[in-house]
Amino acid sequence: MSDTAGKVITCKAAVAWGAGKDLVIEDVQVDPPKAGEVRVKILATGVCHTDAYTLSGADPEGVFPCILGHEGGGIVESIGEGVTSVKPGDHVIPLYTPECRECLFCKSGKTNLCVKVRATQGRGLMPDETVRFHCKGQPVFHFMGCSTFSEYTVVCEISLAKVNPVAPLDTVCLLGCGVTTGYGAAVKTAGVEPGSTCAVFGLGAVGLAVIMGCKEAGAKQIIAVDINNSKKEWAEKFGATDFVNPKDHPDKKVQEVIVGMTGWGVDYSFECIGNTEVMRAALECCHRGWGVSVVIGVAASGKEIATRPFQLVTGRVWKGTAFGGIKGRTEVPELVEKYLQKKLMVDEFITHKFNLKDVNVAFHKMHDGEAVRSIVYFQGDGSEKL
Amino acid sequence: MSDTAGKVITCKAAVAWGAGKDLVIEDVQVDPPKAGEVRVKILATGVCHTDAYTLSGADPEGVFPCILGHEGGGIVESIGEGVTSVKPGDHVIPLYTPECRECLFCKSGKTNLCVKVRATQGRGLMPDETVRFHCKGQPVFHFMGCSTFSEYTVVCEISLAKVNPVAPLDTVCLLGCGVTTGYGAAVKTAGVEPGSTCAVFGLGAVGLAVIMGCKEAGAKQIIAVDINNSKKEWAEKFGATDFVNPKDHPDKKVQEVIVGMTGWGVDYSFECIGNTEVMRAALECCHRGWGVSVVIGVAASGKEIATRPFQLVTGRVWKGTAFGGIKGRTEVPELVEKYLQKKLMVDEFITHKFNLKDVNVAFHKMHDGEAVRSIVYFQGDGSEKL
Repeated sequence: MSDTAGKVITCKAAVAWGAGKDLVIEDVQVDPPKAGEVRVKILATGVCHTDAYTLSGADPEGVFPCILGHEGGGIVESIGEGVTSVKPGDHVIPLYTPECRECLFCKSGKTNLCVKVRATQGRGLMPDETVRFHCKGQPVFHFMGCSTFSEYTVVCEISLAKVNPVAPLDTVCLLGCGVTTGYGAAVKTAGVEPGSTCAVFGLGAVGLAVIMGCKEAGAKQIIAVDINNSKKEWAEKFGATDFVNPKDHPDKKVQEVIVGMTGWGVDYSFECIGNTEVMRAALECCHRGWGVSVVIGVAASGKEIATRPFQLVTGRVWKGTAFGGIKGRTEVPELVEKYLQKKLMVDEFITHKFNLKDVNVAFHKMHDGEAVRSIVYFQGDGSEKL
Repeated sequence: MSDTAGKVITCKAAVAWGAGKDLVIEDVQVDPPKAGEVRVKILATGVCHTDAYTLSGADPEGVFPCILGHEGGGIVESIGEGVTSVKPGDHVIPLYTPECRECLFCKSGKTNLCVKVRATQGRGLMPDETVRFHCKGQPVFHFMGCSTFSEYTVVCEISLAKVNPVAPLDTVCLLGCGVTTGYGAAVKTAGVEPGSTCAVFGLGAVGLAVIMGCKEAGAKQIIAVDINNSKKEWAEKFGATDFVNPKDHPDKKVQEVIVGMTGWGVDYSFECIGNTEVMRAALECCHRGWGVSVVIGVAASGKEIATRPFQLVTGRVWKGTAFGGIKGRTEVPELVEKYLQKKLMVDEFITHKFNLKDVNVAFHKMHDGEAVRSIVYFQGDGSEKL
């Protein structure tokens, strides 16, 4: 038992006080975990576009003030009543897609979308409808069931993947979102097969992880698509065979360019941006008869995807994925092992490191497209560029 | 060898002289089959909404004058050079989706969409870019590679399913389109599983065949949806467990009604109308995490389907089917056997019978919703209602 167990902990956190505002580093009070909950000391966290999406105010589920962050790695500090699957000292990765193993969804064998705590998680609350964070006497909302931008956070037991303590938490934290989402979309949701042709739209961390997954699955052609030419080298590093910048083809739709490169279109395509027009292009560049297009990106509220139904009647399949279809408690530990066996790239996604005090810089670097992934540390100065 | 082999045959056909006009029964000249082609004496043919769609002028591929019809049963009269898979006297069902067994698509194992003769078929031509029909000295276009509204027609060898001669051609002709499309959509494209919940939108012959397929696959709940209450009894006859008339719920979207009936939505849904708003409803009434919606209906030219991408990201799959995913030469004969073993309903779809001279009445009965399927005969008076 740690000597903080059962007590309120005061620590540093980056608080989002309102939509569109910079995060503010504050002292926050973190309550002990209640039944079924776990308090985790976060060592490092990635910064993801979804954090920025909610911070922008565009997320209809966004509530303020809140503590963002959902790509963290940490160590269990204390556990609430009835918690059995982790104990203090365990290394864990918080999961925004939990895995209760009891609900209709978990038991279906068809999806990773556990619904056990969905209703409260979506409203920034713990399952008992309260919060564990306070700042200046005011309650602060949770975010995606994770809130990894706090040095200590409280999450549900079912929202924690227990991982091999040998793995560096400031690297494998990226398996909490971006890398797993892209990799899983390729190998699990799409089920890319050896000899396939693939197209990947948007070459942030998720897109690069899709490329990595396609390569591992044995794809023979992986067409990486981005409007930023500097992404070409990145895409090739992860396994892309071709690069297309749609701006180089002002007179053609990008789906026409890709169909032209492949004859009939690609077997699998992936949208990793959140742009509904690109989602359409990704579907329409798919092979007649069997092409599968996977939507990964989160579109702005109210935006809709559209196409001619003929696209589907002639055999294309439109699907989507959340967290790459990966069941977090079961499969994230397996991905960590795979990383330790050097069969999965993770370090390669990290371009920048910051101390928590510079978390807003990490957001700016992400918006610029300069950073693939930034790691934010709670202790020490991680600001050197890798 | 029949004594007509190698000669031009003059026979009756219903000619579509132009968009929006009634068909006219004419004497037409039917050329002998060229290499790889077969001339078939059609005994009976169904009348399908796709014939009406093209006749209306809405089909961008429609060319006139043409001979419509694509749901026929007949007997091989003569064969062209190199034809080996059928001989004169064989009973056959023409296939608008051929099966060459040689193209990329046929060999993929993933689709029934053979492309061997696609380019010419879509333009109303035989593969050598000419037609076999003439009327009043004028060339007349083919339709969907079938043109079964002519007593004699010429089709490609790869567009013929050779079936058991014991089967009544004026019944199993419906396996040339409607029944196979709906049945195949359920058991093949969707792959309905035992214990599933299903929703079927539009209760024409295709929708009823979907219900039949869902029932055979072991679905526990089959919700039939139509704005015509007289379809309720029909739906139940084929296996529906529930009937929903969207007009009975003026304040709710039909997808909300179905989600309300099932808790989380249905495992499988099918759109059998061609209405893009209904296609959206069919997707959105699907179960979070794994619901699959299959588009079967053909939408009006230029119409688009739309939804929020969140529907896909949370696990719904949007796909489509043509001819139920059935490979015609291989699987239609198997369906005929299944019919002969009384394991597949076909007679039950037939509500009206007409002689060719009354083919326009058959179209009107279809538009009224009065007919599920009408059979048109080239000889004799089949006008009695079953």
